[in-house]
Amino acid sequence: MTEEYHGNPSEVRSVWYQDGELRILDQTQLPERTVIERQDSVEQVWQSIKELKVRGAPAIGVAAAYGLVVGLRPYREASSEEFCRQAKRIGDYLIEARPTAVNLAWAVRRMLARLDELVSHRHEVGTGSEVSAARGADRPDRLYAELEAEAERIHREDIALCRAIGEHGRPLIKPDIGVLTHCNAGRLATSDYGTATAPMYLAHREGVPFRVYADESRPLLQGARLTSWELQAAGIDVTVITDNMAAFVISKGLVDLVIVGTDRVAANGDVANKIGTLGVAILARHFNIPFYVACPSSTVDLETPTGAEIVIEERGAEEVRSFGLRRTTPPDMQVRNPAFDVTPNELVTGLITERGIVSPPYAERLQELFGVR
Amino acid sequence: MTEEYHGNPSEVRSVWYQDGELRILDQTQLPERTVIERQDSVEQVWQSIKELKVRGAPAIGVAAAYGLVVGLRPYREASSEEFCRQAKRIGDYLIEARPTAVNLAWAVRRMLARLDELVSHRHEVGTGSEVSAARGADRPDRLYAELEAEAERIHREDIALCRAIGEHGRPLIKPDIGVLTHCNAGRLATSDYGTATAPMYLAHREGVPFRVYADESRPLLQGARLTSWELQAAGIDVTVITDNMAAFVISKGLVDLVIVGTDRVAANGDVANKIGTLGVAILARHFNIPFYVACPSSTVDLETPTGAEIVIEERGAEEVRSFGLRRTTPPDMQVRNPAFDVTPNELVTGLITERGIVSPPYAERLQELFGVR
Repeated sequence: MTEEYHGNPSEVRSVWYQDGELRILDQTQLPERTVIERQDSVEQVWQSIKELKVRGAPAIGVAAAYGLVVGLRPYREASSEEFCRQAKRIGDYLIEARPTAVNLAWAVRRMLARLDELVSHRHEVGTGSEVSAARGADRPDRLYAELEAEAERIHREDIALCRAIGEHGRPLIKPDIGVLTHCNAGRLATSDYGTATAPMYLAHREGVPFRVYADESRPLLQGARLTSWELQAAGIDVTVITDNMAAFVISKGLVDLVIVGTDRVAANGDVANKIGTLGVAILARHFNIPFYVACPSSTVDLETPTGAEIVIEERGAEEVRSFGLRRTTPPDMQVRNPAFDVTPNELVTGLITERGIVSPPYAERLQELFGVR
Repeated sequence: MTEEYHGNPSEVRSVWYQDGELRILDQTQLPERTVIERQDSVEQVWQSIKELKVRGAPAIGVAAAYGLVVGLRPYREASSEEFCRQAKRIGDYLIEARPTAVNLAWAVRRMLARLDELVSHRHEVGTGSEVSAARGADRPDRLYAELEAEAERIHREDIALCRAIGEHGRPLIKPDIGVLTHCNAGRLATSDYGTATAPMYLAHREGVPFRVYADESRPLLQGARLTSWELQAAGIDVTVITDNMAAFVISKGLVDLVIVGTDRVAANGDVANKIGTLGVAILARHFNIPFYVACPSSTVDLETPTGAEIVIEERGAEEVRSFGLRRTTPPDMQVRNPAFDVTPNELVTGLITERGIVSPPYAERLQELFGVR
């Protein structure tokens, strides 16, 4: 079921769950239409993730957690064995929607681990005298309610995490500065606040005046379509530029600070993010402007020593060969389409995490903050 | 009259003149269709320049020179006074098609100066004994033939100039290197060879293997649409990237040399060129790659001391807000759309002119080579 949204766009969420119903904002239709889609089956959730109706690592994780709940709804009356078997099957199915999305698999595994915990708890107590009470806790409708609560916890934790990033980054937004951002690491990519945008939303709520330049972010134009839309909806002064205008805008003294998001941060602080981020980091260094990366701890990957070990996904040629309905290059034109690039740690002024801003030397500091003790 | 071209695309010219007929390649239809348009009236030539069917400073100049000839065709039987009056009127009219295009006005003025010269020569000799012979030289059909010859001279000079840039730049193209270029300073923007592409065409003809990366060059995509098309047509190994992929491609060691064109070079060597050039220059410096600017002497402006005095044209918002049939930002989104940026001379390795490669210090060298003596 889809419906056009006509309310205040600043109140729309990428994903929300209310009265047992999951809804997502169809981001593929932005900025032309604001369409809300109720998710009535796990197949629909799978499609929504696959087709990028819901996108951004944290938002995908939250959608997948709820997606598992949606998929289990028909099994509330089944046996608990069947319920668990279906949960495993649906989880595997959901992960396939975007196999490289770390948060998707993470959220599904966390949901299944919670289910395991509930069921094994039953087995432990089931050997004792409280068999009938334990049987009650094992009933699929109870398991279902517990999984629903777990998905809501994942959701709330994401909001709290983004808010914490916002609070740590907030002091960077001084009155009347210009902030440049690339791609969309905003509310639309998370449950709320966003990561790169969280300091901006908090500063704006406090009445701090500032302006944002949003790179359009070819080829998929997340900056032009999404960052522009969500910042405008919030009443923040935002200007869209094509990616190749960033140098011009910075050279004119209009930008005092860069904040971007990240997909993965290596143990040495090298940052993988949307293609084009490296170029912005080099411009920031050239013009002596601080370059910050908003970085939830879930993106810190201490298993990957440096950015050199991060495999860069190369996407389909058509994204570069055309735009919308119009071909932009000769047919069969040779193109490159790396989805990400790696910004070396020496170009990064700081990582804004939910536990505070991490400064160089990153290898030591990231280990201290996020390493296993 | 328009016709689809089905021959070898490497033989298509932006402008050509044969048997008294002017034809242009309609570049607005590239890369989807290769359409040749015969220009049957000066109004049609005016439209072709206005609508960017023919574009690029040198090509516009050549088209305007021939346009004057096309416009004067109906006056070959008129009185010589009427012929001259019409020439002046048509010249003024053509210049209005793109008032800021320096080469357009330059070519028209050169044609009118030639006419003046022919007519005043008649007045001089007309006072003597060779009145009848002089009258013959003054006949509009003779003046017309002389103007046709002048337009052809402008055309040939442009080809020779681009070829000379190519010969001076040719040694920069070493076997197996990668060359990055931005926008289109190619054959399509000139009569042949192009400026930034001239060294590439000459190296390719000599069998030197190399590859080119063409920035797509938002917002108008001259790289994706035009540079890609013309280099592919010539059989040169060309890959289109979005502008924000340049840093990635350079960081991977795929680029050894940057060559771009220019719209204007200030007396100190600061370079105004298509928006995005400054960013490429900064990347080249960061990665220690030479950054060359192909620069016909007509673009050297010794009257403008530095790039700071160059006024940057800001174009319409819709170019950034949309692409082709599709809107890319929310309606009324605030955007910037500077058409050019200025690359400071310290980022420029050399200027490839028709008289040789100019190295720093530019102020002295440009004055020596192009200053009035």
